[in-house]
Amino acid sequence: MKIKFKPIGIVHSPFRKKEDIDPSLYSNSLGFERVQGELEIFKEYEEGLKDIEGFSHLIVIFFFHKSEGFRLGTIPFGDDQLRGVFTTRSPHRPNPIGLSTVKIIERHGNIIKVAGIDMFEGTPILDLKPYTPRDQKSPLKLGWLKDRKEIESKQ
Amino acid sequence: MKIKFKPIGIVHSPFRKKEDIDPSLYSNSLGFERVQGELEIFKEYEEGLKDIEGFSHLIVIFFFHKSEGFRLGTIPFGDDQLRGVFTTRSPHRPNPIGLSTVKIIERHGNIIKVAGIDMFEGTPILDLKPYTPRDQKSPLKLGWLKDRKEIESKQ
Repeated sequence: MKIKFKPIGIVHSPFRKKEDIDPSLYSNSLGFERVQGELEIFKEYEEGLKDIEGFSHLIVIFFFHKSEGFRLGTIPFGDDQLRGVFTTRSPHRPNPIGLSTVKIIERHGNIIKVAGIDMFEGTPILDLKPYTPRDQKSPLKLGWLKDRKEIESKQ
Repeated sequence: MKIKFKPIGIVHSPFRKKEDIDPSLYSNSLGFERVQGELEIFKEYEEGLKDIEGFSHLIVIFFFHKSEGFRLGTIPFGDDQLRGVFTTRSPHRPNPIGLSTVKIIERHGNIIKVAGIDMFEGTPILDLKPYTPRDQKSPLKLGWLKDRKEIESKQ
């Protein structure tokens, strides 16, 4: 089975390449919350954004377009052990799909200004979903991540 | 740009068709939490699941394989107004990608037993990601959903 998608828009981000991202942002669960950018949804899909600015948070599903190949075992940034790729957010996954939840600042037509950007400039957007109470989970068990003191779960 | 993915596994669910789902489940943010099922990850990707049982919750990204076509304006179940599709979780989206966060019960090899299943039997799985504190957002604004008294956000 082959599954084909096409971008519904692109991300505008302050990050153009890996070196633009301060590595310390990754080690704090709030690290990217201040990073602002825009979601440019192609005009043909703008009608699907109706009233989206009434929501505080959006789930952005995107394509890791700079990712080539994948490894089932991966050593995450700041770690020293091999972890199963599905226990990480590595871009090098069998299907290079990314997911970030961003905060909506404002919308002007087909442009949504958001905070919480951790994607590169030009990232193809595949889908947007409203973040709702069904997406709020707690308490959490965090597997190998639990040893990172800077990662704290909200109860 | 065409983006191609292939399933990494399939969902085993008590729901084989729409009529199997009690509509009241949709109207409560906890409705599906008791519904158990299995994520069968194909053997070739099993190595990527290493230590996944240390996490409490998994984000499952899947293909709405029964969905045909899309509408940019949609009337959600239990609603009476046209909403922008990107403010809903309708399966009829430009890219029919689904997202559910499930609770891990246990894993045996390539089979993960979970709770929180709202997908149909046989749904192709595209990706699994650990749910971490970065996925916990609050407080929420819920747009048109806020008028539904049964939807309550955790602060």
